[in-house]
Amino acid sequence: MEIMPAPLGRLIADLGRLPGVGSKTASRLAMHILRRPASEARALAADLMDLHAAIRLCGTCFAFSEDDPCQVCCDSRRDRRLICVVEGIDDLLAIEKTSSFKGLYHVLHGVLSPMDGIGPSEIKIDALIGRIKKDSVREVLIATSSTVPGEATASYLFERLKGLTTVSRLACGIPMGMDIKYADEHTLARAIEARAYERNQSL
Amino acid sequence: MEIMPAPLGRLIADLGRLPGVGSKTASRLAMHILRRPASEARALAADLMDLHAAIRLCGTCFAFSEDDPCQVCCDSRRDRRLICVVEGIDDLLAIEKTSSFKGLYHVLHGVLSPMDGIGPSEIKIDALIGRIKKDSVREVLIATSSTVPGEATASYLFERLKGLTTVSRLACGIPMGMDIKYADEHTLARAIEARAYERNQSL
Repeated sequence: MEIMPAPLGRLIADLGRLPGVGSKTASRLAMHILRRPASEARALAADLMDLHAAIRLCGTCFAFSEDDPCQVCCDSRRDRRLICVVEGIDDLLAIEKTSSFKGLYHVLHGVLSPMDGIGPSEIKIDALIGRIKKDSVREVLIATSSTVPGEATASYLFERLKGLTTVSRLACGIPMGMDIKYADEHTLARAIEARAYERNQSL
Repeated sequence: MEIMPAPLGRLIADLGRLPGVGSKTASRLAMHILRRPASEARALAADLMDLHAAIRLCGTCFAFSEDDPCQVCCDSRRDRRLICVVEGIDDLLAIEKTSSFKGLYHVLHGVLSPMDGIGPSEIKIDALIGRIKKDSVREVLIATSSTVPGEATASYLFERLKGLTTVSRLACGIPMGMDIKYADEHTLARAIEARAYERNQSL
C-alpha cells in the first residue's frame, strides 16, 4: 500500500528533478517544507511564480534582467567599448563580484559543442559581432571556461573577431594561494608558457 | 552595484534556507529553474501551495495524511492492537518500506530533549497512552532512533507504559551485510549484550 500522501509525493518528484538532488535529498527537503509553517512554502511558491514572469533577457548583452536594457548596459560609468564574453549569467555574476571589470558583458548562453548540435548560430555570436561593429568596441575579453568546449569556443571567437577588434582571453595559471606542488601538470604547463615578463596592460 | 535581478535573489535566499542547501547550491538550483521552461517552475510552485493545504495530521496516529483518519489507521487488514512508535513520518515511511510491520503507527513528532525545552507534553505521549487504554493495545514497539535523545525517549516510554501493555524496542546490532571488523565498538558491544539465544517471537 502506498501510504505517502500524494501531494507530498508530487513535491518530492518535482524536487528530485533539480540538478544534484537525489530522491533522499528531495524527500528530506519536502519533509522540512511540510514541517515548517505554510507561509514559508507559500513564499517559496510565490517567488517561483515571479521568476520567469519578472525576469527577461537584456536585448543587448543577453543577461537575465528585470529591465531591458539591463542595469549594466544602462550604467553610464562603464566602459561601453570593452566587452567581456561569458558562457552564462553565473560567470557574469562571478566576474562582477571581483569588481575588477568595468566594461559591459555579452552572455553567449552556451558554448560550441558540435556533438550536441550546438554550432555558432545556436549561441549569441552573431549578436556579439553586431555589437562590436555598431559600438566600435575596442576590446573583447573572452571569459569562457578553461574546459575543452570553453577553449574551443574561445579559439573560434579569436578567429571570427580577428580584424574587428582587439581580442583577449582570461589568464590561465596557478590559482592564488595555491602551493605549486599541488597544481595539476596542465595548469602548471600553461603557467610556464604564459609566464609574465612585464606587467600586462590594465583593463 | 547589485546586478542580480531581485526576483532571482529572492528565490536564491528562499532555497538557501532549506536544510543542507548553501548559497552556492541555492544559486545553482535557481539558475537551473530559470533556464528551464516557466511551466516547470509553475508546477513546482503549485505543488508547494498544495502541500500544506492538502496534508493534515491524522487525529489518531499523527502521521501526515490527506485524510483523517489516515489510510493506515483505516486499513482493516492491520493489527490494531500493535502500535509502532516513531519520531517522525520519515521513520514511518522507512519502516513501511520494509513490509515487515503490520500494525498501526504513532508519530511522536519529536523526541525528549530537556535542553531544548521538549518534555513529555511537547510530543504526542499522552495521546499514545490514551490510544493504548482505549484500544486495549497488546504491544507497543518503540522505534525511536538509537541516538542519545532517541534512547532517552525510549527509556522514558518503557517507564511510562509499564503495566499498561507489552513494550518492545527495535533490535540494536550489526547492520546486515556489515563486516564485523568495521563495526564501531558501541554497536558491537550492544550486539554482544543482545546476542540471540533463541528466535524472537514474531510480530
